[in-house]
Amino acid sequence: MDEQLALNWLSQRMPVGDDCYTLDWSGTNLLLTTDMLHRDSDFPAGASNYTIGWRSVAVSLSDIAAMGGDPEALVIAYGNSDFERDKLEDFISGAEAVCEKFGARIVGGDLDNHEELTVVTTALGKTTEPVTRQGAEPGELVAVTGDLGRTGAALRLFEVGETDRANELFRFEPRVETGMKLAPLASSMMDISDGLARSLHQLAEVNDLGFRIMADKIPYHPAVDEFSDTQEQKEELGIFTGEDFELLFTSPEENEFELARTGATVIGKVTEGGVEIVRGRDISSLKDEGYVH
Amino acid sequence: MDEQLALNWLSQRMPVGDDCYTLDWSGTNLLLTTDMLHRDSDFPAGASNYTIGWRSVAVSLSDIAAMGGDPEALVIAYGNSDFERDKLEDFISGAEAVCEKFGARIVGGDLDNHEELTVVTTALGKTTEPVTRQGAEPGELVAVTGDLGRTGAALRLFEVGETDRANELFRFEPRVETGMKLAPLASSMMDISDGLARSLHQLAEVNDLGFRIMADKIPYHPAVDEFSDTQEQKEELGIFTGEDFELLFTSPEENEFELARTGATVIGKVTEGGVEIVRGRDISSLKDEGYVH
Repeated sequence: MDEQLALNWLSQRMPVGDDCYTLDWSGTNLLLTTDMLHRDSDFPAGASNYTIGWRSVAVSLSDIAAMGGDPEALVIAYGNSDFERDKLEDFISGAEAVCEKFGARIVGGDLDNHEELTVVTTALGKTTEPVTRQGAEPGELVAVTGDLGRTGAALRLFEVGETDRANELFRFEPRVETGMKLAPLASSMMDISDGLARSLHQLAEVNDLGFRIMADKIPYHPAVDEFSDTQEQKEELGIFTGEDFELLFTSPEENEFELARTGATVIGKVTEGGVEIVRGRDISSLKDEGYVH
Repeated sequence: MDEQLALNWLSQRMPVGDDCYTLDWSGTNLLLTTDMLHRDSDFPAGASNYTIGWRSVAVSLSDIAAMGGDPEALVIAYGNSDFERDKLEDFISGAEAVCEKFGARIVGGDLDNHEELTVVTTALGKTTEPVTRQGAEPGELVAVTGDLGRTGAALRLFEVGETDRANELFRFEPRVETGMKLAPLASSMMDISDGLARSLHQLAEVNDLGFRIMADKIPYHPAVDEFSDTQEQKEELGIFTGEDFELLFTSPEENEFELARTGATVIGKVTEGGVEIVRGRDISSLKDEGYVH
């Protein structure tokens, strides 16, 4: 089985469909999520230990954000071939920086001798009204937070050796505050971990409906232009490259004005079926392609 | 830095001293703990996927038990080079079996392509009265649950190819129920993850006191006899080999009768300083040696 098949199979045994697990807990809901990252597939050469710490924590905070939750505490399991003080200090500083910015706290962890740098962060959050992936209705708006292609551009910057800018871009901000503002507005929500295209397909499948996306409404990160001469190249970075960790959500049309106030961008509509993209006069299927962790 | 030094350094930056982090939460306490295990150092050749799943979960349940807590939910990050259905099914079955036995539930996780089998389990529990490592007083009793050397014997059985018995022994039972019974009785508690000797030294350091242990009171697992002809060999398996995951705790002397009812064995006394072992008429220092993860 590949990862996706294994996940589908697991989802029949346990509640793994959403970005976090929700646990009803004396008047509120606890949210719990875990993410495994490692050198080989998640941290390009040139990524600093500070960035690795930041990003490791940020992916779990993003899962809490995707449920409209408020992060509280994190534990980190850190495996590496050495525990050199400077490296560990930079890693922890990056991890703490993103925690402090979003009101969470690192409360514990585990260290392990491990050939390959491997980090697993687990975040605990809470919310009174969790937003799951299920709940979208045809006719609703579909929207994203922030802009897309930031991680794609960062990866290109790492490739060409512009390490400082690459690291800066690679330290994305999990949409914790926006997620909480969106909680009462969104009918379904998830974070974009495998690219917009794949996330739209996932959301369509869970809700048994479709999307029609307007290509010219998709908000691209300014850095995307540096690495794309054509619309196709732009979409490669912004739609088919994963790990931007913006939020993708649906919301009833009457919320349009309130959505705009959160900084989110409406990119299309929920339809009865099929994931389509409108480029000028052309309407075509949006490929279910993207980054596989 | 080695792992222990790194942990000491980290403990100055964050609350990592106890088996779990305790989070005050509307009238109760949440407990959170994470553990990273991997093929190379935690799962000997011959350990079945069922055993790997069981043990991965059991180490985190043991941390909850060590705080006197009641486990609620677990998330598992599972990295492997393939997600073969049979392997994954056996792993999950083992993980679920130990969860069910102790009233916890696996609620989510992450799958990751990873060269080496790597599992990180994070458990969430609760308790109204968390027992920390700090609180022992000179004159109190020091005691352990169950018997020691089970994992040491299992490792020998793996070596000699007695795989079935080895797997059975390797699937230790986290002392969840006993931990909850001990919560009102224990003044300090931890689980024995690095062997009794090292754990005694750790508990002595945290409490700034000592222990005098009676060698003939130490309860050994029956299988230890098969692999030890001398007292020294016995102690190697039962005192200096880690990962038995029994509970080590201190308790005021007046609780002696109640402790016995929980099945725990008093092995000595809390003293002002030094960790000593009494063998017949000989009193000597107990070496601070044991398994390092």
